[in-house]
Amino acid sequence: MVSIDTASPAVYPFVAIVGQETLKQSLILNVVNPGLSGVLIRGEKGTAKSTAVRALADLLPEIAVVEGDPFQSDPADPRGMAPEVRARFAAGEALPVRRRKVRVVELPISATEDRVVGTLDLETALKEGRKTIEPGLLAAANRGLLYVDEVNLLDDHVVDVLLDSAAMGVNTIEREGISFSHPARFTLIGTMNPEEGDLRPQLLDRFGLCVQVEGLTTPAERVEVVKRRAAYEDDPDAFAARWAEETAQLRDKVAAAIALCPQVTASDAILFAIAERALKLGVDGHRSDIVMLKAAKALAAWGGREEVTPADVERAAALALPHRMRRKPFEEILGPHAA
Amino acid sequence: MVSIDTASPAVYPFVAIVGQETLKQSLILNVVNPGLSGVLIRGEKGTAKSTAVRALADLLPEIAVVEGDPFQSDPADPRGMAPEVRARFAAGEALPVRRRKVRVVELPISATEDRVVGTLDLETALKEGRKTIEPGLLAAANRGLLYVDEVNLLDDHVVDVLLDSAAMGVNTIEREGISFSHPARFTLIGTMNPEEGDLRPQLLDRFGLCVQVEGLTTPAERVEVVKRRAAYEDDPDAFAARWAEETAQLRDKVAAAIALCPQVTASDAILFAIAERALKLGVDGHRSDIVMLKAAKALAAWGGREEVTPADVERAAALALPHRMRRKPFEEILGPHAA
Amino acid sequence: MVSIDTASPAVYPFVAIVGQETLKQSLILNVVNPGLSGVLIRGEKGTAKSTAVRALADLLPEIAVVEGDPFQSDPADPRGMAPEVRARFAAGEALPVRRRKVRVVELPISATEDRVVGTLDLETALKEGRKTIEPGLLAAANRGLLYVDEVNLLDDHVVDVLLDSAAMGVNTIEREGISFSHPARFTLIGTMNPEEGDLRPQLLDRFGLCVQVEGLTTPAERVEVVKRRAAYEDDPDAFAARWAEETAQLRDKVAAAIALCPQVTASDAILFAIAERALKLGVDGHRSDIVMLKAAKALAAWGGREEVTPADVERAAALALPHRMRRKPFEEILGPHAA
Amino acid sequence: MVSIDTASPAVYPFVAIVGQETLKQSLILNVVNPGLSGVLIRGEKGTAKSTAVRALADLLPEIAVVEGDPFQSDPADPRGMAPEVRARFAAGEALPVRRRKVRVVELPISATEDRVVGTLDLETALKEGRKTIEPGLLAAANRGLLYVDEVNLLDDHVVDVLLDSAAMGVNTIEREGISFSHPARFTLIGTMNPEEGDLRPQLLDRFGLCVQVEGLTTPAERVEVVKRRAAYEDDPDAFAARWAEETAQLRDKVAAAIALCPQVTASDAILFAIAERALKLGVDGHRSDIVMLKAAKALAAWGGREEVTPADVERAAALALPHRMRRKPFEEILGPHAA
Amino acid sequence: MVSIDTASPAVYPFVAIVGQETLKQSLILNVVNPGLSGVLIRGEKGTAKSTAVRALADLLPEIAVVEGDPFQSDPADPRGMAPEVRARFAAGEALPVRRRKVRVVELPISATEDRVVGTLDLETALKEGRKTIEPGLLAAANRGLLYVDEVNLLDDHVVDVLLDSAAMGVNTIEREGISFSHPARFTLIGTMNPEEGDLRPQLLDRFGLCVQVEGLTTPAERVEVVKRRAAYEDDPDAFAARWAEETAQLRDKVAAAIALCPQVTASDAILFAIAERALKLGVDGHRSDIVMLKAAKALAAWGGREEVTPADVERAAALALPHRMRRKPFEEILGPHAA
Amino acid sequence: MVSIDTASPAVYPFVAIVGQETLKQSLILNVVNPGLSGVLIRGEKGTAKSTAVRALADLLPEIAVVEGDPFQSDPADPRGMAPEVRARFAAGEALPVRRRKVRVVELPISATEDRVVGTLDLETALKEGRKTIEPGLLAAANRGLLYVDEVNLLDDHVVDVLLDSAAMGVNTIEREGISFSHPARFTLIGTMNPEEGDLRPQLLDRFGLCVQVEGLTTPAERVEVVKRRAAYEDDPDAFAARWAEETAQLRDKVAAAIALCPQVTASDAILFAIAERALKLGVDGHRSDIVMLKAAKALAAWGGREEVTPADVERAAALALPHRMRRKPFEEILGPHAA
Repeated sequence: MVSIDTASPAVYPFVAIVGQETLKQSLILNVVNPGLSGVLIRGEKGTAKSTAVRALADLLPEIAVVEGDPFQSDPADPRGMAPEVRARFAAGEALPVRRRKVRVVELPISATEDRVVGTLDLETALKEGRKTIEPGLLAAANRGLLYVDEVNLLDDHVVDVLLDSAAMGVNTIEREGISFSHPARFTLIGTMNPEEGDLRPQLLDRFGLCVQVEGLTTPAERVEVVKRRAAYEDDPDAFAARWAEETAQLRDKVAAAIALCPQVTASDAILFAIAERALKLGVDGHRSDIVMLKAAKALAAWGGREEVTPADVERAAALALPHRMRRKPFEEILGPHAA
Repeated sequence: MVSIDTASPAVYPFVAIVGQETLKQSLILNVVNPGLSGVLIRGEKGTAKSTAVRALADLLPEIAVVEGDPFQSDPADPRGMAPEVRARFAAGEALPVRRRKVRVVELPISATEDRVVGTLDLETALKEGRKTIEPGLLAAANRGLLYVDEVNLLDDHVVDVLLDSAAMGVNTIEREGISFSHPARFTLIGTMNPEEGDLRPQLLDRFGLCVQVEGLTTPAERVEVVKRRAAYEDDPDAFAARWAEETAQLRDKVAAAIALCPQVTASDAILFAIAERALKLGVDGHRSDIVMLKAAKALAAWGGREEVTPADVERAAALALPHRMRRKPFEEILGPHAA
Repeated sequence: MVSIDTASPAVYPFVAIVGQETLKQSLILNVVNPGLSGVLIRGEKGTAKSTAVRALADLLPEIAVVEGDPFQSDPADPRGMAPEVRARFAAGEALPVRRRKVRVVELPISATEDRVVGTLDLETALKEGRKTIEPGLLAAANRGLLYVDEVNLLDDHVVDVLLDSAAMGVNTIEREGISFSHPARFTLIGTMNPEEGDLRPQLLDRFGLCVQVEGLTTPAERVEVVKRRAAYEDDPDAFAARWAEETAQLRDKVAAAIALCPQVTASDAILFAIAERALKLGVDGHRSDIVMLKAAKALAAWGGREEVTPADVERAAALALPHRMRRKPFEEILGPHAA
Repeated sequence: MVSIDTASPAVYPFVAIVGQETLKQSLILNVVNPGLSGVLIRGEKGTAKSTAVRALADLLPEIAVVEGDPFQSDPADPRGMAPEVRARFAAGEALPVRRRKVRVVELPISATEDRVVGTLDLETALKEGRKTIEPGLLAAANRGLLYVDEVNLLDDHVVDVLLDSAAMGVNTIEREGISFSHPARFTLIGTMNPEEGDLRPQLLDRFGLCVQVEGLTTPAERVEVVKRRAAYEDDPDAFAARWAEETAQLRDKVAAAIALCPQVTASDAILFAIAERALKLGVDGHRSDIVMLKAAKALAAWGGREEVTPADVERAAALALPHRMRRKPFEEILGPHAA
Repeated sequence: MVSIDTASPAVYPFVAIVGQETLKQSLILNVVNPGLSGVLIRGEKGTAKSTAVRALADLLPEIAVVEGDPFQSDPADPRGMAPEVRARFAAGEALPVRRRKVRVVELPISATEDRVVGTLDLETALKEGRKTIEPGLLAAANRGLLYVDEVNLLDDHVVDVLLDSAAMGVNTIEREGISFSHPARFTLIGTMNPEEGDLRPQLLDRFGLCVQVEGLTTPAERVEVVKRRAAYEDDPDAFAARWAEETAQLRDKVAAAIALCPQVTASDAILFAIAERALKLGVDGHRSDIVMLKAAKALAAWGGREEVTPADVERAAALALPHRMRRKPFEEILGPHAA
Repeated sequence: MVSIDTASPAVYPFVAIVGQETLKQSLILNVVNPGLSGVLIRGEKGTAKSTAVRALADLLPEIAVVEGDPFQSDPADPRGMAPEVRARFAAGEALPVRRRKVRVVELPISATEDRVVGTLDLETALKEGRKTIEPGLLAAANRGLLYVDEVNLLDDHVVDVLLDSAAMGVNTIEREGISFSHPARFTLIGTMNPEEGDLRPQLLDRFGLCVQVEGLTTPAERVEVVKRRAAYEDDPDAFAARWAEETAQLRDKVAAAIALCPQVTASDAILFAIAERALKLGVDGHRSDIVMLKAAKALAAWGGREEVTPADVERAAALALPHRMRRKPFEEILGPHAA
């Protein structure tokens, strides 16, 4: 993708967001454990949902990618390579490597399927036996985060494509008998205002976690929001600089948790606690249990622990279960202390 | 079809799926007897429906195909050959043969009619008198399984095409006065979440069997699901290796049942039992009786028997009748012990 | 139309269909008297509707056609010739003649108007003064049977075209000021499942006859259906061979009735009986009377008689009246003994 | 328009239609006085509506047209000429004249606006300053009858075009800044089955007359219909020959009435009777009065009289008023003796 | 616009329209004062609405236009010139002037936006730096009347364009980054039948005046309508000749009123009477007051007076207020004596 | 954008608008503080909404732009430059500067996405590596005001695009893998008539302020409106000249407030008053608080004060809160003295 970005001002720092702890935690857990299948953020308008997702970019770790490869191939893992890179790797070529931050790619709700999936230049493909690919957003999002604002207004057709790729970790571009696949593993982050219509259950279930965001309710917090926002709008770079140290500390904590997470273990007692909780609340299917386990492990890693505790499970359940429960109004289930 | 697949990790093993015996049996019966006209799997989200279908690929037998033929022509049967292959066969050519596994082809719900049926390059056809065919998914699915996830959301137009091909065993590509036919015999496997709308009766009837899948309800089972899933996600290949022996045993049992099935017989008493059951339950038409007979024979073969027993009929009825009954809610009919 | 068919297995023999006498009779009457304007077959799914129509092909008589003419021109009747053939005939050319069976042409419900009507190559037509026609399904169906499965789901636009051609016996291809007409006389056979929506009255009326098909209700019949179906699926050719003699006898009887039909007469008493029946039942218009007369004559011919009897009228009324009656539910009118 | 028609059999003779006197009269009145603005024929299916309109062609008088002109220009009246013909006429050219019957042009309900209005070849028009016109159905219908079967199902867009041309007597083809007009005076004849939806009032009002057709209700009449229809279908040409003399007499009577009609006068008492009738029945607007006067004059001419009588007015009112009355159900207004 | 009109017969004379004084007055007032923003004519079918508008053309004054300019540029006012003409004017060129009648341009309800607005030949514009404009109906209507029959059925998109141009007095053609503007001041005249749906309030308000037309209710008037209409249809030119003198007198009176109108004044008492009337009737916004003032001035000029009288205001209110009142049924407001 | 405007007459002066103080103030506050995120003007038809917005253009300050740059790049701030300009700036080029007024760009409700966003000439981009951009309305509106009349009727797709750009201050043109961004900071001004449907909450919230406009209710005011309007229509330039001095004074006051605004401060007490007000009224999210603060500062600057007062907050709340309150009818909230 040829792209010349406008020199943008510094984004609002994640650490400067007032309150909204659940929202912030759900995002960080997905960074700590990318296997969590993303998060759906539901909430009224004007509650820092988009600000938080965009701010998250600043906390993300670095990864190694193959230089010049539009599919973000992993230079260390043939399975995480696009076909052409894998062929070069198989041929013994020393792949050029670049380290860069994990990316947040935004999917506009007006995006067409071609834009999301990518396209093939058929003529060249058929005549010259050479595939000319125009990679799509799913190529850009590989090994990163894919953010969809107002995900409940997304075109059904594009939703199908997203779900397919998310489930398989692979995106396939098909045009009249030609088929091209590349890795497409990404963490899906969606925001939505429930006033404007809800998601269908099939799509809800694909989000590992779900949080409900509400406006702050104490004058002191609101004044703090206004002060910080005004300061930021006045001079974004100066404001970001003021929060630079806190940001750096959080970034280090995230990196430590990412490193620790694969080593976290859960006892059988913990696993049974997870299963019983899901059964008691009457969720559909088993995805909830797996997500609870992953979230609990990420919480343990975040806490610097190598063992999941019952408190981790309780917290994980609050993030993983409500949107998977049958036939009850969402608000009733979450209760006043959930968010 | 030109295709370069990403080196995918091992799929989740069929034998490692916890519970869901009816689901697994219905899939195996369709492998044992491809004349069963497929199975519709209905169930809530997150209940291993897709996992089971994808895992099935590992258990499928080998077949002989004509090398390089996109229509999977059968080298031993002129009726199962595409026109060009049949012409070569008729001309006495020794056809190159390749043995490979039966395939599971996925039909994405966003697939267009062209993609499913295939297309004709009209210009070449008219000018050079030579047909240039771009085969579709029905060519790829010939002699295999065709899997449609969320089949209830499929475009009506594509449904028509599927039903026509399924009924006739032939797919016809027609474009402005030119017509090309090739064999298209496949087992149709559909999954759906009834929360998102049901199928119309005409389409329901085309599925030989129908099973209802529900989530597991004991903590021990759920813990087992989570443990296995976590182990699989951790290292797919190692996990698959752990289940390799059990997988091999099941594959052998499937192969034995496939071989035995054509020899299974049913007495007249069995046939009358089938007819009376259909009449008593008030199903539409006669397809139910034929399917029950076929399913009962497959069950007998699976049990290593050469004769259908009343128990086979009872089991077959539970799989073949409920979705063909008139005007009663599905759940009521199946009852709690059906799934 | 360039067409290379797959070598298909033998179709299920008409004479091997168990029960469904009304359905079979309505089809045969249309073969005996092509002036009957077709038949609409209504019935639940899985009741041999399509099987019977496809099997009918085997019983059809031979006709003489002009060799190589895509419009099936009649070599003996200038009015039944396409323009080009008529011109050659008028010029005194000896037309090449071929005898072949009357055809059953299937119209898929996804067919476009172009596919049905045919198209004109305008450029050639305008520049070289030469018409290049791509004939459609109505050309192929001329002097034959046109079969539409699920006729109630057909696109309105295509329905209009069918009705126009059926009424006039002529199909006209019009494109930007150029107009080409050819004979298009065909017997329209439609099947439908009333569960999926009904036809509008205008279209109902165009079908000469209408029959209601229901599933068989005795175990013995159903067992027979299953036995025959299983035998057929096992080896279609062997099964067809077993019924070959009965098929030949029926074919001869059909041929005899076709020959006799034009000589059958009806007395004035018969005509009054027809008119009174229509008036008593309150049908719309007069098409019912004419169809009853034609059906009664076909029934007489089928019975080897040269004179219509009151019993013929009674039988004809059961086939021709119910779908033309005003404002009463169809089922109530037909009654339990009609099918 | 390049057109090669199939040699069609003789149409069913107008004089052989049993009963339906109102229908036949309304058609003849429109031939006698083309200023009557057509007739709308409403009625149940199968009641000879289309047969009568098509049969009418046989009774139509001859007119003189300019040879080779697709717009049917009147060689005697510059205002009835297409632009090119008028230019030749103005230049003093002796126009070639041909006498032929007034035509009945059918407008299929699937006709597009281009087909109805005609098109312009813009490139030639702009580059060479020369207009290349592809005339449409309104060109063919000029000075003739335009017949629309199922007029209530016509596309709204085409209805607009018809109404505009009918009101102005001119058809205008406009494409990107170029405009071409030609005379388009025609009698609009529409048939419809009210079961399938009614016309909007604006369109109803454009039809001068409106008749309601019902099926015949005596057995004797119905037997006669069947006898004649069967004889016609048996041998159309012989049947037409049998009615040739009666047809010739009617044709002569029509010609005489056409000649007499312009001389028929109406007294002031007659005019007041017309106005009072319209006021009493509460019709919208004044078109009804003018149509009543014209219909009454045509009736007088048909009766060989030079003066309109009160009986003529009464008959004219029955044909011109019912469809213009406000807010009352059509059937109630017409009453049982109107048709 | 290249245009070759058919030599049309004389239109029905304005002065020969029987009754309908309000309708006729509202049209004349718009000619006398083109600042009145048009008139909406509501009424049942067949009430001379279209006849009156078309007849109005005959009474319109002459204006001076720049010869050969498709935008009707005013040779005396640079602000009323199209860009090219203004450039020539600015360069000191002596513009060729032609005097011709103000035009009535009809906008067919099937007109596309391109047809209304006009188009740009982009290729020429970009390559040669030269704008090639295909002017639309708004160019033709500049400084004239734009007539829309069935204005309530007009496409929303075209309505937007009309309203924009009407409000600004300018039409802008925009295509991919190129923008061309020309003056488009016109009086909008719409007719509609309220039975077929009403206008939305935003559009209603744009019409300066609104009149309700009903059929004549005395036999004498209706007889007169029929007599005149019959005479007109018999020989349009002779009929027009008979009314020529009356037409000439009216034309002179119109011209005198046009000349007088700019000098008419209104006292403060008159202005307060206007404001109080609007407030009392609860109309939305202030457009009503301005329109009342203009209409009252036009009425004074029509009456040959230089000062507005209270009677003028009363009459103006009846024309300008009813369609601007809130939430009350139209008919109730107008009352029986308004039309 | 190539553009040749018609020499337009002077617009109606802002200072000559009678009454409507809230409307006028909300517009001026947005000029004083462009960070206010625009204003939504709701009101019945004919209440000077559009007049006021168009008149505002006259009061706007001058800004410096890079000469010839279609994106209105700021020559003093690299972040406010389009990519090409920034590259020249980075290369040390002395950018040509022009001072001109801030612009009001109108977005017609029929505008397509291409027209709003702009397009890319892909062929040139891919072949020559050179981007050829056709800038859209968002380019023209950068650093200015974007006015949408009838904003509630805007196409959903375009609304999305507007919201995205408004939120990010950047517009991105994307076409098949190519992406081009440019600054797009603008003040969004929308007008709407609530009778024709309301905005969805998500869009409502994006407007910083919202005012309700109603018609004037004293005769004296209405007479003044009519007098001024009549005078303006009579001679726009003379009328504008009469108000020139008052306009100049207002323009100076606006300039002074713009200069003062950045220096205005708000005490903590003021900030708490803002937060408590929002909490008490139950608005969604926090955008309300920030907008109240900005509006209060603009009000202070307008009043020549450097410190926000409680009265400023009260006034700001009336403009910023009502449209953000939950679930209550708009009118009830505003109360009679709000507008």
